[in-house]
Amino acid sequence: MSEFDLNNLNECLEKYLPIDKLTEVKRILYGLEEDQILDLSDSATAIAQKHGFEIKGYRFTAREEQIRKPRVVRVGAIQNSIVLPTTAPIEDQRTAIWNKVTTMIKAAAAAGCNIFCAAMPFAFCTREKFPWCEFAEEAEHGPTTKMLAELAKSHNMVIIHSILERDIEHGETIWNTAVVISNNGRYLGKHRKNHIPRVGDFNESTYYMEGNTFHPVFETEFGKLAVNICYGRHHPQNWMMFGLNGAEIVFNPSATIGRLSEPLWSIEARNAAIANSYFTVPINRVGTEKFPNEYTSGDGTTAHKEFGPFYGSSYVAAPDGSRTPSLSRDKDGLLVTELDLNLCRQIKDFWGFRMTQRLSLYAESFQRASKSDFKPQIIKESSKLKD
Amino acid sequence: MSEFDLNNLNECLEKYLPIDKLTEVKRILYGLEEDQILDLSDSATAIAQKHGFEIKGYRFTAREEQIRKPRVVRVGAIQNSIVLPTTAPIEDQRTAIWNKVTTMIKAAAAAGCNIFCAAMPFAFCTREKFPWCEFAEEAEHGPTTKMLAELAKSHNMVIIHSILERDIEHGETIWNTAVVISNNGRYLGKHRKNHIPRVGDFNESTYYMEGNTFHPVFETEFGKLAVNICYGRHHPQNWMMFGLNGAEIVFNPSATIGRLSEPLWSIEARNAAIANSYFTVPINRVGTEKFPNEYTSGDGTTAHKEFGPFYGSSYVAAPDGSRTPSLSRDKDGLLVTELDLNLCRQIKDFWGFRMTQRLSLYAESFQRASKSDFKPQIIKESSKLKD
Repeated sequence: MSEFDLNNLNECLEKYLPIDKLTEVKRILYGLEEDQILDLSDSATAIAQKHGFEIKGYRFTAREEQIRKPRVVRVGAIQNSIVLPTTAPIEDQRTAIWNKVTTMIKAAAAAGCNIFCAAMPFAFCTREKFPWCEFAEEAEHGPTTKMLAELAKSHNMVIIHSILERDIEHGETIWNTAVVISNNGRYLGKHRKNHIPRVGDFNESTYYMEGNTFHPVFETEFGKLAVNICYGRHHPQNWMMFGLNGAEIVFNPSATIGRLSEPLWSIEARNAAIANSYFTVPINRVGTEKFPNEYTSGDGTTAHKEFGPFYGSSYVAAPDGSRTPSLSRDKDGLLVTELDLNLCRQIKDFWGFRMTQRLSLYAESFQRASKSDFKPQIIKESSKLKD
Repeated sequence: MSEFDLNNLNECLEKYLPIDKLTEVKRILYGLEEDQILDLSDSATAIAQKHGFEIKGYRFTAREEQIRKPRVVRVGAIQNSIVLPTTAPIEDQRTAIWNKVTTMIKAAAAAGCNIFCAAMPFAFCTREKFPWCEFAEEAEHGPTTKMLAELAKSHNMVIIHSILERDIEHGETIWNTAVVISNNGRYLGKHRKNHIPRVGDFNESTYYMEGNTFHPVFETEFGKLAVNICYGRHHPQNWMMFGLNGAEIVFNPSATIGRLSEPLWSIEARNAAIANSYFTVPINRVGTEKFPNEYTSGDGTTAHKEFGPFYGSSYVAAPDGSRTPSLSRDKDGLLVTELDLNLCRQIKDFWGFRMTQRLSLYAESFQRASKSDFKPQIIKESSKLKD
């Protein structure tokens, strides 16, 4: 049935390990003393069951404080496949995905989510421009933003969603963009992907330039949010700047395949949560897309029409280094996570990573290293021998 | 026997998981298609057996190139407990540790290691200055450096070792330092810990200031090496600067305890290997140290004389995101890893993280963020509502 031998790491461990070992293994792997399961409403579960997607709930708690009240929010993150074949008319493809996402947003609302995030509903890989560029739309006034704004308002939910942006005012430039819509249904702003891959099937430099929106943090009713788009997760300095701008939750909508990046997936966003004392929400897609025309990957293999399954495995990582188990590797899913945002400051106070980070040292060092006449700080034995 | 319910995560998985699941679980967890076991010489194994420490061997390979020959080196990393009680005379404590480390260096030599690294042989935690400051010694001419220089020369091995440094020329300042000795037995240089913790029992800001040696990379016969000392592993920008200076292997000698940092341990050094396309070697100590006088940790618990067991779990991570299993959580051990350093450039060429990192953007952003009048890049709904 599945394209994978193993659909879910956590379920596999739960099936085979004896209970005393399982507890300790999960503590080491996930940093949790025990499973922090969040009970989900029957209505949310019913929507998931009816439409055949996985739904899981977890929670992260924080220490009770004297002055600040708990700042508990629920985050809904979805992983999904496309619906129609890539040969269907673009508008039909988009409408079919909208319908799926709308259903999953309803489930998230039924589960009490305050913030919702989904990844880009399609992938650029063939280096063809047509018809794929027709997916592009304006960030503030485009049809996806309009559709989401209605949902955001009716469910009182902040929605973050990736789009293919067409920047009409700047020469019709195409960007890889995430839009943020407030729970009042207002377009808050956008972020453009800062780092563009040139690896394997991810021929994105054919389509996009590096983003020019820096590292915005969106201050919403449900916390300070940011979006690190896809390949940006490989760059710790990108995560850092969202932290320096005050983010409490950073979403990482991605589309990435197993043999390429799976050994990195559980590491990078979790490291970012640790290093920056915020929550991270890495989201990957599922399913396989087949394109009408074959293309090559520059990897010596034969030309092909698909680039292997996305492996899902979406999760949430907390500033204390703990994390939820992943959603499956192969199924549509909704991950509902309850967070107490107070944990961010508590972990900053505890570990002191912000206080001890010596930012001006690195500003100067990066400045030197970015110059074309940079001389690395190398100590050689040869120079010693001349002494 | 052990202070832990689970001594070794990998052995636990191997014991309980069926073989087909095990392979896939290990691929997801370690990023390896199959175990890359390195056969170790009988003489190395015999030394380990005789002296009762664990010894494990792994290898990372690289693609064959047309022009460069493989650059294969073997790295020996040890995790060890102290030998005598902390109440023994300082010199006796040090000699006993030297003897243990010397034996382990011999085993590393017998296993063909070219580079050897060990962590600091004691911990500062009580906030007492005496007698602990008597451990301090000069970096270039101190007794530990002299002792190691002999071993480095006779075994043709680069040795990296943590010391407590006394900087006589600068007012007898105490530093947390690692010295690097070439395989010719010459002192190459030192690095002083860049980031100093103030967390739990790690009262190091009582003893040390932040290092002033920047991010040196030591160009040796066996590759370009650097040392990220202990708490510096929590800072991605620290790892980055070693990478920008050209490091191919970065050692991370640490001393850290389970309930504090274990959920972070498998993440941070591995993320650094991924983000910077180099190998990392995180090393932790084992055992429990009891101090003569009780002290507090600022965590609301009663005063105590020990701070719980170090959890070992030393490992090596590769630039492609794969990693070795860990040494045990509770026993002295030697981890021998064969690396082809060509993998670093190959992964840079493949993933392009260096090329896509936009360093000058971050130099400027960090510069702004380090100023006292920094205004974070925040987008609020309230300002939108005024439109």
